[in-house]
Amino acid sequence: MKASDAFVKRRVGQENTSVESAASTQAAPGSAQTRGAQPLAFTVVGRCPQTAARAGVLTTPHGAVQTPVFMPVGTHATVKALGPDDLRAVGVSIVLANTYHLLLRPGPDLIAAFGGLHEFMRWEAPILTDSGGFQVFSLGHLRAVSDDGVRFRSHLDGAEVTLTPERVMEIEALLGADIILPLDECPPYPCTPEEGRTATERTHRWAERALAAAHRPDQALFGIPQGSMDAELRVASARFIGALPFDGFSIGGLSVGEPKPVMWRMLEAVIPELPDTKPRHLLGVGSPEDLLESVARGVDMFDCVLPTRTARTGGLYTASGRLNIRAARFRTQREPVDPTCDCYTCRTFSAGYLHHLLRSEDEGQRGELLYFRLASIHNVRFLIRLMDEARAAILEGTFAAFRERFIAGFTPPDEQIRDEQRRKRGAGLTAPSPRPDAI
Amino acid sequence: MKASDAFVKRRVGQENTSVESAASTQAAPGSAQTRGAQPLAFTVVGRCPQTAARAGVLTTPHGAVQTPVFMPVGTHATVKALGPDDLRAVGVSIVLANTYHLLLRPGPDLIAAFGGLHEFMRWEAPILTDSGGFQVFSLGHLRAVSDDGVRFRSHLDGAEVTLTPERVMEIEALLGADIILPLDECPPYPCTPEEGRTATERTHRWAERALAAAHRPDQALFGIPQGSMDAELRVASARFIGALPFDGFSIGGLSVGEPKPVMWRMLEAVIPELPDTKPRHLLGVGSPEDLLESVARGVDMFDCVLPTRTARTGGLYTASGRLNIRAARFRTQREPVDPTCDCYTCRTFSAGYLHHLLRSEDEGQRGELLYFRLASIHNVRFLIRLMDEARAAILEGTFAAFRERFIAGFTPPDEQIRDEQRRKRGAGLTAPSPRPDAI
Repeated sequence: MKASDAFVKRRVGQENTSVESAASTQAAPGSAQTRGAQPLAFTVVGRCPQTAARAGVLTTPHGAVQTPVFMPVGTHATVKALGPDDLRAVGVSIVLANTYHLLLRPGPDLIAAFGGLHEFMRWEAPILTDSGGFQVFSLGHLRAVSDDGVRFRSHLDGAEVTLTPERVMEIEALLGADIILPLDECPPYPCTPEEGRTATERTHRWAERALAAAHRPDQALFGIPQGSMDAELRVASARFIGALPFDGFSIGGLSVGEPKPVMWRMLEAVIPELPDTKPRHLLGVGSPEDLLESVARGVDMFDCVLPTRTARTGGLYTASGRLNIRAARFRTQREPVDPTCDCYTCRTFSAGYLHHLLRSEDEGQRGELLYFRLASIHNVRFLIRLMDEARAAILEGTFAAFRERFIAGFTPPDEQIRDEQRRKRGAGLTAPSPRPDAI
Repeated sequence: MKASDAFVKRRVGQENTSVESAASTQAAPGSAQTRGAQPLAFTVVGRCPQTAARAGVLTTPHGAVQTPVFMPVGTHATVKALGPDDLRAVGVSIVLANTYHLLLRPGPDLIAAFGGLHEFMRWEAPILTDSGGFQVFSLGHLRAVSDDGVRFRSHLDGAEVTLTPERVMEIEALLGADIILPLDECPPYPCTPEEGRTATERTHRWAERALAAAHRPDQALFGIPQGSMDAELRVASARFIGALPFDGFSIGGLSVGEPKPVMWRMLEAVIPELPDTKPRHLLGVGSPEDLLESVARGVDMFDCVLPTRTARTGGLYTASGRLNIRAARFRTQREPVDPTCDCYTCRTFSAGYLHHLLRSEDEGQRGELLYFRLASIHNVRFLIRLMDEARAAILEGTFAAFRERFIAGFTPPDEQIRDEQRRKRGAGLTAPSPRPDAI
């Protein structure tokens, strides 16, 4: 990775003793025209005869990933409560990290000085970084958006930050993920047709600028189709983004509080317009049933904080649904949460012990620390296994039945409650406040 | 363990399918006279020629323990942030659990229904339970103390609880630890000579009652000499308790805010009065230097929340002292906290990453969850290694030099700060408020 090291070295301006000097034979970090180097390969190795589901293999500089795949979210360069040892033990093959949070703390230059995100968090397998677009629009304060980019105040310390498509590429180059995303604008939910169009158009311009910006040849760039909840706009965006020389596609702006049937309709509008031979990532999804329904519609990759976040508040997955380990009925249960699960938690501990740990609250402690690790191990393993089994079923030609069986047996939490949770996740997007034009 | 299972069964009054019916050939849970069964063996296998330090082997129903040994504290049936897998990985051989906390939540009957504490927390190695005496006097509200026992209100829900020496033995039988402690009264610090004598006398009466109470033949009982900070009273208590048929001794009422030289003087008064061939446990100690200084004075076993608690707030041990990983200078450190340490944390992560994790505070999060596990792993491993190395030095005849070298290189946090921390731990003991006599 000589050219990329040289790029990082120039940016950081410091010696990295393990980096060799840039070889002149490498292609310069390039524009769309020079994206001849292949930092990512994707091969579809099996297809479901009844649905749009595919099984694939994604190859990156840090290793291969079998798809469909669930990617836990490592917001602050750590998947909450889980060390790399835990992640490996449950079969995680790729994680997502948030550019927005890492930009604010500890900062991309520091991470680059540590040799990049893989080295910093000691995760030597693939990493995907999102662009920060979603968090800027949901977390940042005093946003000013223009065609140039977005300006906001850090929610941590109020410092003013400007992000442009070019700056985001720079930041992601310093972080060094295998797959990176361009700056996009996610429209609020709900939004007016005008807001939806403006955000989508801007996303398209920014996509072009990201492709034209300098970037590392060892990083794959995924495009982000938007389109709000307008099927026509969704089709147009997917066509436009889909025609650009991206290595894959991360579908944005869904699961932001819209009713589930709307989400499926949008997904069904988007997928056929994306190149079949490139991977499709559905941003911010999701629950077990959402994963399977999305796989059935042609999605290959997922990321979501829900499984780990709900684990920490007591929501643990089983094939029959999401139980709440805080409930009194678990107090005396000697069996594990999920007797069919092979994770460390279910192999080792009773549900009653987990109940006890989480209910051990006092003096500012929301539960015993061990609980959060054990619960997160279980929920992540559950989703990894679900995707592994889905993949095996796709290869066997039995995915449609597999999905039907799982959905029939799995009772999701109340639909209303879930919509509320999704709305909370997209909190900043729901306020239809007027937005300043100029940066 | 048929007699013990029968004992538990009668108490709990419920079926335990894995328990065989009591065999009549077993000795009944007995009084001091029938303490012929040996639930614990202790052998001194080496002695320091220059100091009172010894190396030993403690054998319990759940396995052997090499001494000197540090026992992490598993307050709520978990050592905070560490799973049994982590404990095993860092070489922990025995843990301490708090009867007071487990009595209040989840309760001894529930734990017995789960097969006992070992099974509940899935720690299949030795466990020592303290009696709750210290916590009652430091945490409980509206205490009424009499020769009968102590009455208090749970700090959790205000429920009124009465503890007598007999009740404590019952509770500890249900918990099922390998080593148990009798109810004692720890005098406040500071205290009047009268208060010191009253508490010590009461501890002696309660010790006799504990020995006379029904208890499991597979549990070892340690006696607790008290005596406040009066050397004569300490000698008298050590002689009295030391002459009783306890299996070992847990020295109480030290490290409660007294100046360090006073603690050493008390320890030096106590140790010679205890049987040389039985193990000595120093309750609530402590820091690395305190461990070595106590080993030099003849202590075999230690327990303390300090190493894990200070880890969680950034205090990490190295041979040169306790650093604070929050400090700005660690932000850019690529090396581990302790390059000589073999724990998972030091083998894997940079100090800068730990700094980042702990400094990732927001919205009610005091730092990333992964930090607390990694930091606790390190500090516990540090103390385990320290005791292992001390033991090896004792066996080689080089302990005096080992201790001197370590103490010379290790700079403890400011003495004043430490005294304050100790006073905080014994908070309830410092208020010289009048105490009701009657229960």
